[in-house]
Amino acid sequence: MRVYDIIFKKRNGQKLLKEEIDFLIFKYNNGDMPDYQMSAFLMATFLNGMDDDETFLLTDAMINSGDRMDLSFLDMPIADKHSTGGVGDGTSFIVLPIVASLGICVPMIAGRGLGHTGGTLDKLESIPGFRTSIDKKEFIDILESSGAAIIGQTFEIAPVDKKMYALRDSTATVESISLISASIMSKKIAEGAKSLVLDIKAGSGAFMKKDSDAKKLAQKMINIGKNFGLNILAVVTDMNSPLGNCVGNSLEIEQAINILKGKLKNDLSELSIYLSALMILNVKKTSSLKEAQDLAQKQIDNGKALEKFTEIIRLQGGNTKVVDNPDDVLPKAKYSKRFMAKKSGYISNIDTRSVGIAEMLTGAGREKKEDKIDYSAGIIFHKKLNEYVKKDEAIADLIYNSSDHIDEAEMIMSDAYIIYNNEDKNINMAGKVYDKRIIELL
Amino acid sequence: MRVYDIIFKKRNGQKLLKEEIDFLIFKYNNGDMPDYQMSAFLMATFLNGMDDDETFLLTDAMINSGDRMDLSFLDMPIADKHSTGGVGDGTSFIVLPIVASLGICVPMIAGRGLGHTGGTLDKLESIPGFRTSIDKKEFIDILESSGAAIIGQTFEIAPVDKKMYALRDSTATVESISLISASIMSKKIAEGAKSLVLDIKAGSGAFMKKDSDAKKLAQKMINIGKNFGLNILAVVTDMNSPLGNCVGNSLEIEQAINILKGKLKNDLSELSIYLSALMILNVKKTSSLKEAQDLAQKQIDNGKALEKFTEIIRLQGGNTKVVDNPDDVLPKAKYSKRFMAKKSGYISNIDTRSVGIAEMLTGAGREKKEDKIDYSAGIIFHKKLNEYVKKDEAIADLIYNSSDHIDEAEMIMSDAYIIYNNEDKNINMAGKVYDKRIIELL
Repeated sequence: MRVYDIIFKKRNGQKLLKEEIDFLIFKYNNGDMPDYQMSAFLMATFLNGMDDDETFLLTDAMINSGDRMDLSFLDMPIADKHSTGGVGDGTSFIVLPIVASLGICVPMIAGRGLGHTGGTLDKLESIPGFRTSIDKKEFIDILESSGAAIIGQTFEIAPVDKKMYALRDSTATVESISLISASIMSKKIAEGAKSLVLDIKAGSGAFMKKDSDAKKLAQKMINIGKNFGLNILAVVTDMNSPLGNCVGNSLEIEQAINILKGKLKNDLSELSIYLSALMILNVKKTSSLKEAQDLAQKQIDNGKALEKFTEIIRLQGGNTKVVDNPDDVLPKAKYSKRFMAKKSGYISNIDTRSVGIAEMLTGAGREKKEDKIDYSAGIIFHKKLNEYVKKDEAIADLIYNSSDHIDEAEMIMSDAYIIYNNEDKNINMAGKVYDKRIIELL
Repeated sequence: MRVYDIIFKKRNGQKLLKEEIDFLIFKYNNGDMPDYQMSAFLMATFLNGMDDDETFLLTDAMINSGDRMDLSFLDMPIADKHSTGGVGDGTSFIVLPIVASLGICVPMIAGRGLGHTGGTLDKLESIPGFRTSIDKKEFIDILESSGAAIIGQTFEIAPVDKKMYALRDSTATVESISLISASIMSKKIAEGAKSLVLDIKAGSGAFMKKDSDAKKLAQKMINIGKNFGLNILAVVTDMNSPLGNCVGNSLEIEQAINILKGKLKNDLSELSIYLSALMILNVKKTSSLKEAQDLAQKQIDNGKALEKFTEIIRLQGGNTKVVDNPDDVLPKAKYSKRFMAKKSGYISNIDTRSVGIAEMLTGAGREKKEDKIDYSAGIIFHKKLNEYVKKDEAIADLIYNSSDHIDEAEMIMSDAYIIYNNEDKNINMAGKVYDKRIIELL
């Protein structure tokens, strides 16, 4: 068997066999197949696609590139959730303590921010001392003592995905339904989750712009998950406006603490409760979604979720004082610049990807993987989608230490927000209203 | 401008601009763009194509990666021919002395064999002492004194093509009309040819299996050539059976000498005369093709072509005794094995690519670029396509020194030849008759 022939076959749109996919991934993982052959294969796969069988086989081969964790000895339901990424999506560290406080184990492997999307690991690392680079032994120790941990992708878990993702990221082959599915599912299955909730984002701030593509991706991942014997639920949610009241690393941590304290309710807290409830329902802890939602809300109201969050911070080396006094512990930026409405009207459209780029330009994100980030920078939103704004009223504040790219960030924000001068807020420029986050539960 | 965005654009099937193509080729040629990005771009181009404008711009950028030779000081018509490659295609070193003997300068840059196709350079190097690795200065010196030379692709001529071709060869992105066109045309224009004849092969032994694809490729190259102000003619010729009476390096040199001596007439000599005539016509040395064919034939009959061939061998360091006594000078293989007909009937089909693979397995070709070749090995054909053969009659002889892969070669030959037991030789298995080499002159 030759790598060349497998590329050739996919280039011609033919279906690959198990032994071909195994061979390719094995060779690449071992360093016996150069990056330039893999990137040609990835582009051929991007353009010609893979069917469900092939995607399942790819996922399986990627799992086999590393360890597959067996957490069954914990004698707890093991659940995880994954979001395909958007702007202001800080649900992970709200959902995780809620669910873990109910005795559900959550062995979460999260990612870093790149381009317009922030990363869960970066956000948590804005808490002084918080470590996400944790080896397998310590990961299992933490799971044993607290039932939850959020760590980075270690070399043991589907290591080939790390190499493949880096390559996709520089060869314009990220937004492929098959490749995204295999990447996510290989990690989730290898980490030992038995139950999985997927939050598939659709809209201007997501990889998938169209609801229909997001549904296709969700369905692909459900099919793969079922083939691996997973309890799996997927929900398509809207990403046509940033989630929550702010974007930025320490800003989103502070917001999460306020939500876990029950002091703040917004679209982010609602989505977090909803996703927590799906996880609870999915491990059959309740028999209805409504019951699960009530249970999740209860864990906030009785302080158990906040307690679990504090425990996770402590076990991963972070300064737990952040919970009581976030203002004293989290890094603060020196400057802020107000972004104002140029006219009165309804905010009818937000190009959410652009808001993510503006966030990156404040210093809060990375353009390239090697870039350093400023944990304190970001954007605070005063007005959200569909809200009425008066001329010269504040829409948002840009928060920063370095003003190097602030003018550019402001210009991008200015282009991203469309204010429609019409009394009927339900008609926006695109003729479509984005007024609910939950689009469809599959 | 970022390489990523250019890959992204081609991935989405969008048309690239001059500055984008220039940027990409410049970066790659300078080593500022990794192979894995180029291979993703090549696969995207393979699958999404390039229009005539883009292909012209790509050709131009590839020319600009190196020197552009100016041979106008020679004060001779400057012509070249290029074949897209097949099995037994030894026309180059027959055509070149015929045409050069008429005072037409032919600065030919040729290639090596790989896989099922042999290479002009390898064939010539079977003549002891013959050098093809010649620098620009010596190349011009030889052209000045004899009007013709055949050399390998030097670093000065479209160097980026060498890097790109090596990458295409290992990423299944060779058979793209745009990429083939730009690769060939960039070299031909950079070498200084003003007049070009293209022999585009179609059939089971060619890159282009279908006549219609070969015509598309021919038309694309004609369009590029005209844009560069070239006098250009293209002919689509049949490659559904090997050309000539043998394949192999020294075997084909001996055959060429016999053709240039006027001692051998076959499909190879006919095609060589035809291509020579097109070159003669294309520099307006005659006013009709018939006249040009007569002139080419005359150069064989009067010994001028053979004389020119001897001169080229001498100037490139080869042993000129090969012309009078090929048997004494050329390397000879020790063994031969007869390949016989399993039944009586007409040879109705030959999978020509397979014959090329069988040739490679005798030791005459390379599977990988690094492989050594045996100049003396090859195959001698006793029966050709559409000929009648009796059971146990010899179809071919495999000629070799190493028997390592001879059984495999024989098996491949056995599968490649289809003998149809029907008195009507004009009906073959595919229902199509390949009885003429010249399919269409464009």
